Amino acid sequence: MTIVSVPANVRAALEAVLDCDGFLVDEEQRKHYGHDETENLQYPPSVVVRPTSTEQVAAVVRICAEHAIPITPIGGRTGLSGGALCVHGGVGMALDRMNAVVAIDDKNLQVTVEPGVITQVLQEAVAAKGLYYPPDPSSRGSCTIGGNIAENAGGPRAVKYGVTRDFVLNLQVVLPNGEVIWTGANTLKNSTGYDLTRLLVGSEGTLGIITRAVLRLVPLPKDTRLMLVPFPSAMKACEAVSATFRAGVLPSAMEFMERDAIAWTMRFTDGLPTQLSTDPEAYLLIEVDGDHADMLMRDCERILEVMEAHGCGEVLFAETTAEKDALWKMRRSVPVSVKAHSVYKEEDTVVPRYELPRLLAGVKEIGRRYGFSSVCYGHAGDGNLHVNIIRGDLSDKFWEEELPMAIREIFEITVSLGGTLSGEHGIGLVQRPYMDIAFDPVQLDLMRSIKRVFDPLGIMNPGKVLP
Amino acid sequence: MTIVSVPANVRAALEAVLDCDGFLVDEEQRKHYGHDETENLQYPPSVVVRPTSTEQVAAVVRICAEHAIPITPIGGRTGLSGGALCVHGGVGMALDRMNAVVAIDDKNLQVTVEPGVITQVLQEAVAAKGLYYPPDPSSRGSCTIGGNIAENAGGPRAVKYGVTRDFVLNLQVVLPNGEVIWTGANTLKNSTGYDLTRLLVGSEGTLGIITRAVLRLVPLPKDTRLMLVPFPSAMKACEAVSATFRAGVLPSAMEFMERDAIAWTMRFTDGLPTQLSTDPEAYLLIEVDGDHADMLMRDCERILEVMEAHGCGEVLFAETTAEKDALWKMRRSVPVSVKAHSVYKEEDTVVPRYELPRLLAGVKEIGRRYGFSSVCYGHAGDGNLHVNIIRGDLSDKFWEEELPMAIREIFEITVSLGGTLSGEHGIGLVQRPYMDIAFDPVQLDLMRSIKRVFDPLGIMNPGKVLP
Repeated sequence: MTIVSVPANVRAALEAVLDCDGFLVDEEQRKHYGHDETENLQYPPSVVVRPTSTEQVAAVVRICAEHAIPITPIGGRTGLSGGALCVHGGVGMALDRMNAVVAIDDKNLQVTVEPGVITQVLQEAVAAKGLYYPPDPSSRGSCTIGGNIAENAGGPRAVKYGVTRDFVLNLQVVLPNGEVIWTGANTLKNSTGYDLTRLLVGSEGTLGIITRAVLRLVPLPKDTRLMLVPFPSAMKACEAVSATFRAGVLPSAMEFMERDAIAWTMRFTDGLPTQLSTDPEAYLLIEVDGDHADMLMRDCERILEVMEAHGCGEVLFAETTAEKDALWKMRRSVPVSVKAHSVYKEEDTVVPRYELPRLLAGVKEIGRRYGFSSVCYGHAGDGNLHVNIIRGDLSDKFWEEELPMAIREIFEITVSLGGTLSGEHGIGLVQRPYMDIAFDPVQLDLMRSIKRVFDPLGIMNPGKVLP
Repeated sequence: MTIVSVPANVRAALEAVLDCDGFLVDEEQRKHYGHDETENLQYPPSVVVRPTSTEQVAAVVRICAEHAIPITPIGGRTGLSGGALCVHGGVGMALDRMNAVVAIDDKNLQVTVEPGVITQVLQEAVAAKGLYYPPDPSSRGSCTIGGNIAENAGGPRAVKYGVTRDFVLNLQVVLPNGEVIWTGANTLKNSTGYDLTRLLVGSEGTLGIITRAVLRLVPLPKDTRLMLVPFPSAMKACEAVSATFRAGVLPSAMEFMERDAIAWTMRFTDGLPTQLSTDPEAYLLIEVDGDHADMLMRDCERILEVMEAHGCGEVLFAETTAEKDALWKMRRSVPVSVKAHSVYKEEDTVVPRYELPRLLAGVKEIGRRYGFSSVCYGHAGDGNLHVNIIRGDLSDKFWEEELPMAIREIFEITVSLGGTLSGEHGIGLVQRPYMDIAFDPVQLDLMRSIKRVFDPLGIMNPGKVLP
């Protein structure tokens, strides 16, 4: 992999369009912006730029285009597929200073934001006006909207409300030649030309840099109910998931966690309910939301019937806001807790919801055959299972040579069940070698040609998504 | 505009891959497939093919590609922008024989269909299993899913459930070179490569031919309430629309109709409630759906409060299924009734919901200035206003020379309000001259380049969408 060092004349040109906090070359700063949450990977850029306006972004991109310098947009660095890693060096463009909530339009239920807004900051800003932005990654306290859009992030509430893609109305984008466009219109419906908006969503910073987004909002639900449901059998827990939807209930979250995910989270996270038993093989965390207590109660009753029919243990209802927060903290802490326990590799498999038990069984069977253990959890209501393969005391040789074959088998099962490689983390760097499992050369060539339309020089986040 | 006649050798090649019902050249048959519902336009193909399988579609496309013959996919011919008109002659490919509901997967809440399935047929097939496919164009009794996907059709239920795009999980597509791909996976979430699925949705048959679709379903709501709300002022009716959403209610339909739409529909349609007064300047038709009567009642009460605060007249509640059907029949009959009254041109403007009163005022002001009358109706909850400009006794000269300038002004107002040219009808043939109002050359060049990636020969539905 070629690592491009930004030459002095280009540095001078970049420095001229940025202020002193906007142009960083210290090794420590480059390292800071050179990693995300993907394994323990480190790919520092040669230069970090931190623009404060669309005009600065465009100016930087024009300079990079002129000198064919790779440029990698960087959000909250919480990514799990390595999408923001500067694998070819060059310019790392951190959008963290473009973090304004520009305008909350409570008449049209829309909000305009800059890409560096932290997701939770946005959620709290609109909640103060009685509005709701549902996409809700575990990392919502530090991830940014720009990154969420780039990766088409999901989170627990996607099961009821949809993923980031479903909330993006219109994007301002700086193209790889420095030109600035809006992709669509600020409307709920749009049948006007090709859907550039949704082509940009999930394109992982390879087609352009998002500098502003208009997002759809919904009214904030007034109340929630949250329950934690233990199951002696993980398979039965998975089966209960699709049965819930077939019973006509639409939960606002339906999360699955294997025993070890619970155990490690209790060990590595403070302030959690400590009384949770690790006897059950798995738990479901189920939330319903709405405006009326009687409706929520009816939903809970229907859910309980389904759970009991699948042999659940004693259900824990969160009675207070503090109890709800503690359960959600536990769920959100699973990824970091697994990481605290051991180095791991995370796969973001997704299948049609009813196939979840078969996917889980397949993952465990592959683990037994290859000799690795895994912790699985995720957004079961969407069929989205995060498979964490635990390094433990596996040898380097196994980790680097044999494990990729096992991961390949996991993805092959996933695709054979009608699923695909990534539900919400993106392909980025680390899933790229597996794209041939989901797509044949015809589809990949179409994607490569689309990439060339936007980025003929190949400077925009090179080395990502497409093999 | 070049009209391509399919030469004898190509006819022979096509005939060889199709059965006798699949290859038509009679003038009457060509005329039958040569129009849709767009004004009174007629563009018959040189040859009609009616394949029965993906393999036949691919074989036809390969032959056309080899001889650079234009090919236009044809669905239910209910389009309002001329997307299925064979403006360059060539081969018209009617998908009406590929009309199977292939499989209803009630475990995963999905359905696989061929493109020629009539939308209402699909809805009824899944309803028999307690499932719901909400996208619901007025023409649902004769339009097809393939056409709905090509135009990204909407309809009344989009306001709660989303448009066709939001229900498409995966598409089988024959590309303009005859290769066959699936665009994605059968999953609710997908962050795996560029979103080819949503690039194809709304591309109006210019990037390939959809031969199979996997669609998302939801549980069928058990009950509905439907009310017709008269307003002495059309502006007040429009204002009541966005106020409803801000009050936290999400209707399953929120339709706006001006007085003349009601009057003409009552005159030209049988079996309607005849007691409707045409004193009110406008009506809102509002539906809520759900599983519990008490919830529906609460929604209705909240809606009534908002309506009364905006000065509505006496509200008509549909008490029985027959009364509901009659009101929906009235709403669905508006387009054909306007057509029965006079030749007209229809614009499919869409703006952010709160801007609807300003759009309506702008349309009327332009009409006064140019001297035409218009009937406006549509999906007010989505900000989607269908503007029907009535020919009446306007001169040919006005209709052909001055009216395009007036339409340009209507679109300019629409775009200035954050809206765009088409909410659900597509650009097709007739809105193409106005694309420069919504997009600048940079955006249009991107779209043209994407078109070339898929269709370098320019044979797939030429003369549509892009100016």
